[in-house]
Parts: sequence; C-alpha cells; structure tokens
Amino acid sequence: MAPPELRILALPVQGEIAVGTDLAELVLRAVEQRGERLQSDDVVVVTQKAVSKSEGRVVRLEDVEPSDFAVRYAEEFGKDPRHVETVLQESRRIVKMDRGVLITETRHGFICANSGVDASNVGLGVVSLLPIDSDASAISLRERLGELTEVRPAVIITDTFGRVWREGLTNVAIGVAGMAPLQSFAGQQDPFGYELRVTVMAVADEIASAAELVMGKTDGTPFVLVRGFAFEARAGAARELVRDADKDLFR
Amino acid sequence: MAPPELRILALPVQGEIAVGTDLAELVLRAVEQRGERLQSDDVVVVTQKAVSKSEGRVVRLEDVEPSDFAVRYAEEFGKDPRHVETVLQESRRIVKMDRGVLITETRHGFICANSGVDASNVGLGVVSLLPIDSDASAISLRERLGELTEVRPAVIITDTFGRVWREGLTNVAIGVAGMAPLQSFAGQQDPFGYELRVTVMAVADEIASAAELVMGKTDGTPFVLVRGFAFEARAGAARELVRDADKDLFR
Repeated sequence: MAPPELRILALPVQGEIAVGTDLAELVLRAVEQRGERLQSDDVVVVTQKAVSKSEGRVVRLEDVEPSDFAVRYAEEFGKDPRHVETVLQESRRIVKMDRGVLITETRHGFICANSGVDASNVGLGVVSLLPIDSDASAISLRERLGELTEVRPAVIITDTFGRVWREGLTNVAIGVAGMAPLQSFAGQQDPFGYELRVTVMAVADEIASAAELVMGKTDGTPFVLVRGFAFEARAGAARELVRDADKDLFR
Repeated sequence: MAPPELRILALPVQGEIAVGTDLAELVLRAVEQRGERLQSDDVVVVTQKAVSKSEGRVVRLEDVEPSDFAVRYAEEFGKDPRHVETVLQESRRIVKMDRGVLITETRHGFICANSGVDASNVGLGVVSLLPIDSDASAISLRERLGELTEVRPAVIITDTFGRVWREGLTNVAIGVAGMAPLQSFAGQQDPFGYELRVTVMAVADEIASAAELVMGKTDGTPFVLVRGFAFEARAGAARELVRDADKDLFR
C-alpha cells in the first residue's frame, strides 16, 4: 500500500455570499472549476464567515443598544461599545476579562476571544456572529451536497481561535458532520509493545489547520477540499471537542 | 494563477532510529522512495521522537533515582516515580499539578504535559526527552540536508500537545528552521476596506497539525513532506511561538 498523501485544495469563489446563498452549490461549482469531482471520502472545509453570512448571522452595529457595562468597558479599553455589547450577548460566561482582552464561553461551549464576533470581511459597521448551532450547519451543508450529487463528504466548519501559552491563531473546527472529530489510538500497541493509553488526536482541528494554510485571509477562499485523509465515518460533532467542565483544569 | 494546493506526503522509514542516525540521509532516501526530489520551498516535518532518539535524548528508568517528592506524588496517583522524577528534572516550572496531571514549563518555554517526557515508541523501561534545543536541532537538520543536496527546505520538528478547553491533542512545532513560524496579516485590508489588525496565524503549528494527519502513531512515519505552502523564508524559530510571560493571561 502506498504511504498516505493528503491533498489540500483551495476552492476560491467569485462574488459575495449573502443571506440564503446556497453554499453547497458554490462548493460544487468551485470543485468543478478545479477539475475535480466530490468524493464521499473527501472533507469539505468551510469558514465560519461563509456559513454565518449565508445564515444571516450578521449584526449592524447601528442597530445595537449597548448596556452601561458595555459602555464602561469599551471606554476603558478604547473599543466600540456596540461591538462589546454584541460580544456579551453572544456569551454565556466570561472566562477572562483582562487588559482589554475578552475571552468568553459561547452558547456552543467554545472558549474564544470575543465570543467569535468578528468585524473582518463582512462590511464596515457590520460584525459576524458564530452560527447558532454550527454542528447543525455542518449537517445541513452535508445533506444539501448529498441532495445535489448523491455524494456525502465529511464537512468541517472552521474559525480561527487564539491559544493559551502560544502566540498566533490556528484554525479549529466549530462544526463537524460525517466524521469523528477525535481519533483515538488508545489501546493500540507501538512496535515495542508499549500500550498507547491516552493518545486521542483532535483530527478535525488538525484538518481545519491544514485547510487554513491555503485559505489566506482576504482572497475569497471560503472553502477547501481535503482529500486522502482516512477519517472514521460517523455522524460526529464539534461539541465532542469541547472539554467537559468537570474535566477542565483551566476553567 | 492557479489556486493554491498543498500536498502532504508521508515519508515512512524502515528500521529503528538510534543515537547518531543521520536523519537527513533517512529523509532523502524516503523522499526518493516516493519518487520525489527535495525542493527549497518544501517543508520537511520531523517528529520529536526521531530527533530525540538520534540525539540520544532517552533515559532508562532503571538509571533514575527518584526524589522523595516524586515518590510521594507517584504513589498518590499510581505513577512510576522514576518517570515523575524525569518529568520534574525536565521542567523549569510546574504550571498545574492537579488530579494526577502534571503540566510543566520546559527549558524551551513550552507548556505541556509531563515536560514532553514520553514512554511510547522508545522501548520498554525507556522514556524520550525533548531535544535540549529543538530550534538548534531543526537548524542542524536543515544544514545537513543542504550539505547532501544543496537544497535547504524549511524544517519543523513536532510534538503532540494537549490544549486547554478542548479535547484531544494536536501536533505543534517545537523546532523551526528556514521559515517564519508566525505569518501576519496585520495591516492588510479585507475586500471591504476593514483593516485586519491582529490576524497572526501560527502557520508552523498548522503545518505540524497537517503533517500529523498522515503520520499515524505506530507505523514508522517520522517524516512528512509538505509541498506547496508559500512560507516566508527566513531563519525562524519555534521560540517565537512561546508567549512572553508578561503578555500571558493564563500563566
């Protein structure tokens, strides 16, 4: 058997994604323009921004009425109080509020800066919010791809999160459908007979990171095709990547 | 210009890596066996385990004399006191010691479980340690590849680290040579004219994660070739990925 090879293909699109845009159609057109055909063992990676726009998960700041708390915090750190208000509304818990950095837990259980509220690539005076249920969004896209082609690849929706202790952002999975997000090597033996007890790899996050390398930040590449990864095919969900509170040493 | 495509090629090797093994020769043989030739715009990814073995950074537990502290901790949590002692010797600070989990800061500034001391894939009764200076190890491998071929690709040495708040491990860069580990989109404008102020991607970590997807855990793939990523060519170092203590909200 040949050693594994992964191909990570950027799928650029022309034009803007708006509320109601059929992302599955866009994906298929972009795959076709690369001279490829979708396969059921592919992983289709989609940015949060594309999903949020298509689902209308954007907010015009002029429509936001900031609370007194948001106003005070925004003044102290030179931020837009309407942006701060949106972040607070999108959070269910504030994890850290220090030196102007607001790290929150979202409705999904993700812990990230600003509840994932983001002002880039959506238009001036507008911010995007995370999808309400990003796993459901991944399922929908996968089903729609299946309707159009009878091929159901795995789907990963991604966002860029910061990390504790390390500089720089990496792309992670916030929605998963059709694959196990964690792949376990527990119980397998290495060549020396040492049992690998706790090696559980977050493969959905690793695929998200791999995909980001061809996305760029400004050049209209909301989709990436990942071909050649032997994922474990099952329903899957990004919420499996969220550590339970009672197992979390850094809550 | 064609949209970007990355190829992630597993480079399996036969036989064991021992002290003094010339990793550069092994890499080149493995590249050749895949029918490829090394290019200066490639990234060669190497596991910590391969580097540590070749540098003799392994310890036989029977040679370790555990301290009283290590013995008490090991007894409480059912661990091998000699393993605990090795972890403590490899750490310069204990970040978290809770519920049997020992998270430490290494001499390099990395914060990870057990100072990166690892019992898998090195033989029974033996553990591997992180390279003394993993950036220097990356530079050496790059220079040796240059000697043998006159081609100097970027080199990334990786290890699998756990994360705060999220389940599963991901592969990250612990040594870098020949490329910028962080790629900044600061100051660029998105299509709407919104200036992207703080987008700094940890591309070396993303490449490490991408590479892990073809490595497996037990099947003898210590090297991966990543082709097609437009990295910023400069010396680079994994220590750039370590957040300074005074900027760290979670120290």
